[in-house]
Amino acid sequence: MTRVPDSRRDRCAKLLHLLDQQKAAAAVITHLPNVRYLSGFTGSNAILLISGRGATLYTDPRYDIQARQQAHCAVRIVRGPLWPEVAAEIKKRNLTSIALESDKVSHADWLEVAKIIGKGVKLRPVKGVVESLRAIKSAAEIDTIRRSVQVNSKALAQTLKKVKPGMTELEVAAELDYRMRRLGAEGPAFETIVACGARSALPHAQPTTEQLKNDQVLLIDMGASLEGYASDMTRVVHLGEPGARIRGLYEAVLEAQLQAIAAVKPGASCAEVDAAARDALKKRKLDRYFTHSTGHGLGLEIHENPRIGAKVETVLQPGMVITIEPGVYVQDFGGVRIEDTVLVTETGVDVLTPTTKEFVVLAS
Amino acid sequence: MTRVPDSRRDRCAKLLHLLDQQKAAAAVITHLPNVRYLSGFTGSNAILLISGRGATLYTDPRYDIQARQQAHCAVRIVRGPLWPEVAAEIKKRNLTSIALESDKVSHADWLEVAKIIGKGVKLRPVKGVVESLRAIKSAAEIDTIRRSVQVNSKALAQTLKKVKPGMTELEVAAELDYRMRRLGAEGPAFETIVACGARSALPHAQPTTEQLKNDQVLLIDMGASLEGYASDMTRVVHLGEPGARIRGLYEAVLEAQLQAIAAVKPGASCAEVDAAARDALKKRKLDRYFTHSTGHGLGLEIHENPRIGAKVETVLQPGMVITIEPGVYVQDFGGVRIEDTVLVTETGVDVLTPTTKEFVVLAS
Repeated sequence: MTRVPDSRRDRCAKLLHLLDQQKAAAAVITHLPNVRYLSGFTGSNAILLISGRGATLYTDPRYDIQARQQAHCAVRIVRGPLWPEVAAEIKKRNLTSIALESDKVSHADWLEVAKIIGKGVKLRPVKGVVESLRAIKSAAEIDTIRRSVQVNSKALAQTLKKVKPGMTELEVAAELDYRMRRLGAEGPAFETIVACGARSALPHAQPTTEQLKNDQVLLIDMGASLEGYASDMTRVVHLGEPGARIRGLYEAVLEAQLQAIAAVKPGASCAEVDAAARDALKKRKLDRYFTHSTGHGLGLEIHENPRIGAKVETVLQPGMVITIEPGVYVQDFGGVRIEDTVLVTETGVDVLTPTTKEFVVLAS
Repeated sequence: MTRVPDSRRDRCAKLLHLLDQQKAAAAVITHLPNVRYLSGFTGSNAILLISGRGATLYTDPRYDIQARQQAHCAVRIVRGPLWPEVAAEIKKRNLTSIALESDKVSHADWLEVAKIIGKGVKLRPVKGVVESLRAIKSAAEIDTIRRSVQVNSKALAQTLKKVKPGMTELEVAAELDYRMRRLGAEGPAFETIVACGARSALPHAQPTTEQLKNDQVLLIDMGASLEGYASDMTRVVHLGEPGARIRGLYEAVLEAQLQAIAAVKPGASCAEVDAAARDALKKRKLDRYFTHSTGHGLGLEIHENPRIGAKVETVLQPGMVITIEPGVYVQDFGGVRIEDTVLVTETGVDVLTPTTKEFVVLAS
């Protein structure tokens, strides 16, 4: 596996190195998953200042104790707005150029910050720099994601034993989330999707009080958040023996998913992986029902770089963790999506999700 | 109760009226809770254009079916970026001035949007306009929040019957979330806080694998999300008979909470309500342990306007729904916070949370 920075300090150093190429001597990080990645702090209000003189985390008194326990850097507790304190430190450190995440800071905040720090300090807009570090996971991060994936799959296995006609989608979702929590997750990494029958044709269905019936398809898209790291999996099962049409859709999507996984390797582009799934569906004239991208990176957030889409030229590298999740959605009939979390290795791909991809039939 | 706009169309008309005073003929709304409030659409990718000619919702093909089911306005399904389509419609409608939420749109997006729509259209930064409408809840919204509060309190009652020494904080949190789901919630409105013993001194503790012990305090801060609307409640219970020190803290916080609730009425400022809680703690020399604001509005988001803080001059109005949640946090000993969700009525206050505020002792 490629060596990647793995201590918080290494990560900050690597960030400054990248920024140095963009002529910024320091960075102010406000996007919370990036703050967590660089400092270890998990609270909901924080700014992280990083320069050659080290990193300082700013947060409010609610997090006084927690910040000192978690952060691998200096901590300043501030009553009221954090920015004036950060600006004072920028001046104290004689910093003249600050990188700021222009895609994460609101327009109003940007103007406000520019006013506070004054004309002597240049704000340099940067996008996706911390995210580019985060895209390549360290061995420790991969280990955490593996455990997140395991918990997710176990929660599904435990829940499927209880699923039967008459349960509502919301009850199935509650059971899935409860199981992952009991298995050690903080909770779901996103709102669990449970959709039965024709509702499975809504790719992002929110679970409802609709009751499961016999002779119906059931789509479950779920992910755990474990020590901050997400997993993501979709499976489709059938209550009672499936008919020929849904079985045909299932086989087509499974073939597309396996083709896309086979295309995952270092050096392959995201577009190539997407094309592998899309071409497989095209052969069966089903590509017009595949209305989203083939996958996405995940880690501290459920959607990270890279996106596995038709026009994404990003090249896969060892240590990237992505989903592969083609699907077909036929309005008023139903949908099938099959999704695994996979790791790009030095030589190819490691499918982390252990759950079977056979078309599971629940006895009715 | 004050009459407030209650159909989606009324809300859009009211927004345009407010914006008209700010010289914008139209608005483009991107903050998703605001999009939901104005259109009814709950998906994760959307832009809403509103002008005198009506409202149009832009989203992607994943939400094709859902958007047409939910949105109370025209729907356009767009493959790829939404903004170019919105810009085309702005030109088609001959709009020359567009209000855009400057505190919700990133700096990078703002510049990008300005480029796409071109020089003929003026972008007017607005902040908190939709939020100001949302601060006053309609009768239907209040009814939904009441039900959210009921579910939340029932979930706590069901869970407390099962809590005993040896359970972990994470297991208690899992049980709480499971219960609220079974009772009809989509899920928790925020990550449920469960903190035992000295960990209760962390106002925003994330639950851990720490096991509950006898002769220990247990702080639970939880909220349900029901049909999109949040509830919020904190209770502190004790495993075994509490000692004099923790009992003293409890009584002080309860008095502060009751004093703050007594100060809630139309015309009172948020600062006055905050002062009522703070003064009560000051009499017992505990105000220095009260390190956060007294409360906040809630609704489609868990934190909404107004904030009930020391310097907030906002005046309470009938139809506002807020939390009242003073607390004291003594490092290495423990913390107490007592929180209700309350409604500002025409004449005073209606405490929506039905859960007892006696210091509940769980038999050990």
